[in-house]
Amino acid sequence: MKRKPPRSVRGEVDERVRRSKQAVLAATYELLMEAGLGGVSVDAVAQRSGVAKTTIYRHWPTRSALLLDACSKLGSKREAPDTGSLQGDLALLAADLANRLRTANWASVLPSIVDAAERDAELAGMHARLHAELIAAFRTAVTRAQERGEIARGRGATDVVAAVIGPLFYRRWFSREPLDERFVRGVIDAAIGNPKKG
Amino acid sequence: MKRKPPRSVRGEVDERVRRSKQAVLAATYELLMEAGLGGVSVDAVAQRSGVAKTTIYRHWPTRSALLLDACSKLGSKREAPDTGSLQGDLALLAADLANRLRTANWASVLPSIVDAAERDAELAGMHARLHAELIAAFRTAVTRAQERGEIARGRGATDVVAAVIGPLFYRRWFSREPLDERFVRGVIDAAIGNPKKG
Repeated sequence: MKRKPPRSVRGEVDERVRRSKQAVLAATYELLMEAGLGGVSVDAVAQRSGVAKTTIYRHWPTRSALLLDACSKLGSKREAPDTGSLQGDLALLAADLANRLRTANWASVLPSIVDAAERDAELAGMHARLHAELIAAFRTAVTRAQERGEIARGRGATDVVAAVIGPLFYRRWFSREPLDERFVRGVIDAAIGNPKKG
Repeated sequence: MKRKPPRSVRGEVDERVRRSKQAVLAATYELLMEAGLGGVSVDAVAQRSGVAKTTIYRHWPTRSALLLDACSKLGSKREAPDTGSLQGDLALLAADLANRLRTANWASVLPSIVDAAERDAELAGMHARLHAELIAAFRTAVTRAQERGEIARGRGATDVVAAVIGPLFYRRWFSREPLDERFVRGVIDAAIGNPKKG
């Protein structure tokens, strides 16, 4: 029977692997921030991180796998709140999303992923996974509201999600207008069909 | 006094210039379709069009100027309809936009412009001009509706525009769900605060 190396040696190896993976992910992340997806090649990551390409490929078999890992760090999944009303839940979720759109690095990287997804099936898959993660909490909140009968018949959960997220995305990436509290509140009111208080 | 060349000679020169400019714009457009903004360099355009770089630079002093010209072809400004109601006007405008998002080449190029605008001030300016063109007819229709008193107090024209265009953009580029008639109708109803007919 082969004997395992003593616990302390295994620990050191694990620690070295952990650190080199971390360096690679950090370098990938930095390059993403600087130039979007187009700026990330395995060569550039090797150069920036000081980790050999062969080592990088041992942990991530393809550039897409590395991008997926680095980008999943960008997303950070949210828990769905459960305030008891759709308006309450959406107020929390939309305020959090607006805040990330205003400040998070993720927001300046996503357009490069959307662009790549237009022409590259593998990156389109990654884009779809990031999107699913992004909207998961919104979907949970809207589905609960449907079960409580808060959403008009004929209106699907994805219709409501699109009505909330769409205008926020539009302001961040297309019109580049401010994502202030007043705007976010108005978006939620319109999405759930609350009459506007004049 | 210098004499102008005879009309027929001037006509021939004009025609040659026109044709070479057209070839350059067509090549730029093709490259844009194939690979987005990242695929367009003046070198690549010269090679594809067969027009010398010096000639290209005579007509467009910078790559951005060329991109702007080629991209403005993408947009195609719309006239604002005037059906007499906001719902009627938005139904026409949103159906047209949804159709372009589904089919037009423009829709697969815009994300690369959005991406570039995150990091390049000149291209951000181009993005802003394209956006202004895109929403001009929507703004006209919404402003007219405001004058008719059709829009709740406290709701700005750009709020309504974001509520219509945002969900359409979201479906095309982010969730990639179908932009069907039912969805578009629901978006308009929510944007103008029409109660959903169950």
